[in-house]
Amino acid sequence: MTTIDINADLGESFGVYSLGKDPVLMPYITSCNIACGFHAGDPHVMSTTVRLAKKHNVQVGAHPGYPDLQGFGRRRMDMAPEDIETMVLYQIGALAAFCRAEQVELSHVKPHGALYNQAAKDPRLAIAITRAVARFSKSLVLVGLAGSALVEAGKESGLRVAGEGFPERTYEPDGSLRSRQSPDSLIEDPVAAAAQALELAKEGVAIRSGDQFQRLAVDTLCIHGDSPHAEATAAAVYRALEEAGVELRAL
Amino acid sequence: MTTIDINADLGESFGVYSLGKDPVLMPYITSCNIACGFHAGDPHVMSTTVRLAKKHNVQVGAHPGYPDLQGFGRRRMDMAPEDIETMVLYQIGALAAFCRAEQVELSHVKPHGALYNQAAKDPRLAIAITRAVARFSKSLVLVGLAGSALVEAGKESGLRVAGEGFPERTYEPDGSLRSRQSPDSLIEDPVAAAAQALELAKEGVAIRSGDQFQRLAVDTLCIHGDSPHAEATAAAVYRALEEAGVELRAL
Amino acid sequence: MTTIDINADLGESFGVYSLGKDPVLMPYITSCNIACGFHAGDPHVMSTTVRLAKKHNVQVGAHPGYPDLQGFGRRRMDMAPEDIETMVLYQIGALAAFCRAEQVELSHVKPHGALYNQAAKDPRLAIAITRAVARFSKSLVLVGLAGSALVEAGKESGLRVAGEGFPERTYEPDGSLRSRQSPDSLIEDPVAAAAQALELAKEGVAIRSGDQFQRLAVDTLCIHGDSPHAEATAAAVYRALEEAGVELRAL
Amino acid sequence: MTTIDINADLGESFGVYSLGKDPVLMPYITSCNIACGFHAGDPHVMSTTVRLAKKHNVQVGAHPGYPDLQGFGRRRMDMAPEDIETMVLYQIGALAAFCRAEQVELSHVKPHGALYNQAAKDPRLAIAITRAVARFSKSLVLVGLAGSALVEAGKESGLRVAGEGFPERTYEPDGSLRSRQSPDSLIEDPVAAAAQALELAKEGVAIRSGDQFQRLAVDTLCIHGDSPHAEATAAAVYRALEEAGVELRAL
Repeated sequence: MTTIDINADLGESFGVYSLGKDPVLMPYITSCNIACGFHAGDPHVMSTTVRLAKKHNVQVGAHPGYPDLQGFGRRRMDMAPEDIETMVLYQIGALAAFCRAEQVELSHVKPHGALYNQAAKDPRLAIAITRAVARFSKSLVLVGLAGSALVEAGKESGLRVAGEGFPERTYEPDGSLRSRQSPDSLIEDPVAAAAQALELAKEGVAIRSGDQFQRLAVDTLCIHGDSPHAEATAAAVYRALEEAGVELRAL
Repeated sequence: MTTIDINADLGESFGVYSLGKDPVLMPYITSCNIACGFHAGDPHVMSTTVRLAKKHNVQVGAHPGYPDLQGFGRRRMDMAPEDIETMVLYQIGALAAFCRAEQVELSHVKPHGALYNQAAKDPRLAIAITRAVARFSKSLVLVGLAGSALVEAGKESGLRVAGEGFPERTYEPDGSLRSRQSPDSLIEDPVAAAAQALELAKEGVAIRSGDQFQRLAVDTLCIHGDSPHAEATAAAVYRALEEAGVELRAL
Repeated sequence: MTTIDINADLGESFGVYSLGKDPVLMPYITSCNIACGFHAGDPHVMSTTVRLAKKHNVQVGAHPGYPDLQGFGRRRMDMAPEDIETMVLYQIGALAAFCRAEQVELSHVKPHGALYNQAAKDPRLAIAITRAVARFSKSLVLVGLAGSALVEAGKESGLRVAGEGFPERTYEPDGSLRSRQSPDSLIEDPVAAAAQALELAKEGVAIRSGDQFQRLAVDTLCIHGDSPHAEATAAAVYRALEEAGVELRAL
Repeated sequence: MTTIDINADLGESFGVYSLGKDPVLMPYITSCNIACGFHAGDPHVMSTTVRLAKKHNVQVGAHPGYPDLQGFGRRRMDMAPEDIETMVLYQIGALAAFCRAEQVELSHVKPHGALYNQAAKDPRLAIAITRAVARFSKSLVLVGLAGSALVEAGKESGLRVAGEGFPERTYEPDGSLRSRQSPDSLIEDPVAAAAQALELAKEGVAIRSGDQFQRLAVDTLCIHGDSPHAEATAAAVYRALEEAGVELRAL
């Protein structure tokens, strides 16, 4: 029987600024990645979001990003690997404090935005992030793009890893995500997203290189929380998987 | 036999900006309070400072402050107690991550600057800080001004507490510290500081209220690391205590 | 014939975070106060908002606040008057650059949030802000709460001043605003707000002190842009004033 | 007769953090570039530095950088050109406010760190910066690395430009600066720096491309203020130029 995790990036509000539909997504996800105050989130938001996840029995992970609130962590920064490592360690610790205060287990770490994308391709960053996670706890699961350098680095260091797939993003033939700059990078139709979710869960990501073709297993599906039809998509994905007999289970 | 802890506020550099004489103080202190990135410090500095403390067998505590790097956490901010609580929890967690990575125990929490001063007098803030500490771990020691509302709040909540004394600060008759605005708030002569350290260690803080007089025990002495004669003072205090047979021991 | 200005605080979005209904308010206001990047706003938002105001022929002022994005500038900070002065000067200059780039005149300065409230009562802050405004340009209008220490300080320094009234806020008998903490601090009914707008425009603020009673003239009315019924209220106030023959004209 | 400007990057302190030897350099420079609060500097420091420059009759320019205090603006950020433009405009305006308050003319703009280096090679960034400068004032001089894309973009847009040379940096054969990562990127001997200053002033930068060789004129020499021998180098450069009959004159 196929099992898969459904995750969403939550806790991205900041001060008076509200972002995302965290409560609405809760029934449709099995784990969440909570922003840690650098690219989004603040201590109050982190506290509230951990509580919300606990109430819905949704597993909690840290979602560290670049120190760039204005750019929402989506702008590449040319940071030394040593600085990436301490920056990620700092953010994991900050979120872990709220988990500890609420007696919730911190289960995983998934980098955000530009950090996630760079670590998918650059082994130096991937290793820096992996080191931060392993130094905090070897029982944390490292989440990265399926087939990415980050997942590789995690495996090599002996961490448990989870390859992520995106029902709402267009894939390139090589298994990478189409840039958000492209007009067709997002799959906005809930039905199409649900179909892609099912394919990712059952068969994995399709990767073509020359006349080689392979499938890469996906362990967790990411649902976007900031689209106008976030709830419809989350519900459609959830039901499609359930109806197909896929077991939904946190990492 | 009298025992006392000597502490210093360390890790107050930021990025290219260097502050304090951390390595120089190490031989003369038994514990340190490390800035957590809000009023000073950054992830790299925190990591380096925890390592330095470990190397010198100096006990490590968190030194949370207001989110005000420009004001070095010395400006009062009118923050709601709930926000103080999550802000302190966040900072404790961030520092705890570096302790965990270095396999060093986090032993205590001491608020910084305006937060320390406000919590000495305002029970609402004192309780908010105490809650943050207790929610993180009931085995942490809460450090506050001897006789302050913070120490009281800690005791009432069942935390272990430590009353702090200042060899280099002028005391008011009521046991509070003379404002840093006053020209004579600092005791800059190492010999005078050493004498005050000895009195604080042996007899505690003198407190006069009307014709009442009492002594309040002091558990830890704070040495300033940012004065031009920091090393001379630290050495003088250390030797005066040692020669008087006071046992120097971390909290 | 009575004339009055209607202003709103705009440009309070930040990065990916959207706040306020700036375009919707434009037809109903004659001037706006644009956040300068400290408590809200960023360079992109400032640029966009100045353009929007220009397009609608709405006068532009700077809206400086405390460096506290998380608290939206609503938390008092214990900042030295010299630091208030340079902080305000900095923010005026930043906004003035966008006015210059768009060939729009910068007409006034109105402090935000806690800075506005503190300067209404504390002459030291009021003077610091006044100095910043006067040093930038003696032809700027300083906007403050009608009857406040800020308006007084502005007058004494020879600046043109404008006393502000709030159609949507409950007034205390002494002419100050009821604290936002109070449940009845806001007047949410557009009809009631319009009635208060008319009274403020025609008769000014009522001030009672013991058995003394007086009216303080109001030069500009502030419309809130972040309430759910912002547009309805703005429209109601605008029409009530127009129908009563009050001339709507920027400062 | 050869004339040249000598500039230094000043005002790089922040809050309690002190950096650079601004007063010491003043006698040896004819212009300065003042940090604008993003990569370094704060409103108080900016105010103080403008006054200091005025007192020494040193010309004042804006020194905008990335919003990255922790990285001191030395880390590349992947910012959209439109955001670069508004970010630079914001910083120019902020510094211009202090010039206005002190009745000092703002004479030029020189980007800092990673922004300077990227704009030397990437025409899109160069154009974004140029647009910000021109929109603020067409009479500002744009300062960039001699021969860089930034200087080109400035020329094409009709701005006055100044090509910069570095007496204390090792040049690559193609006229670019050796990376600060290299151990020999800095020329630390004051005598060697003075010799290079003289060559740059009299003959310009040597540029070799294949068997092509040319010289690029240099209009301003940058003296580093943060090296341990900053004063000795500044003095040596100043005297060498003076003795060689080079006229020292601001842009």
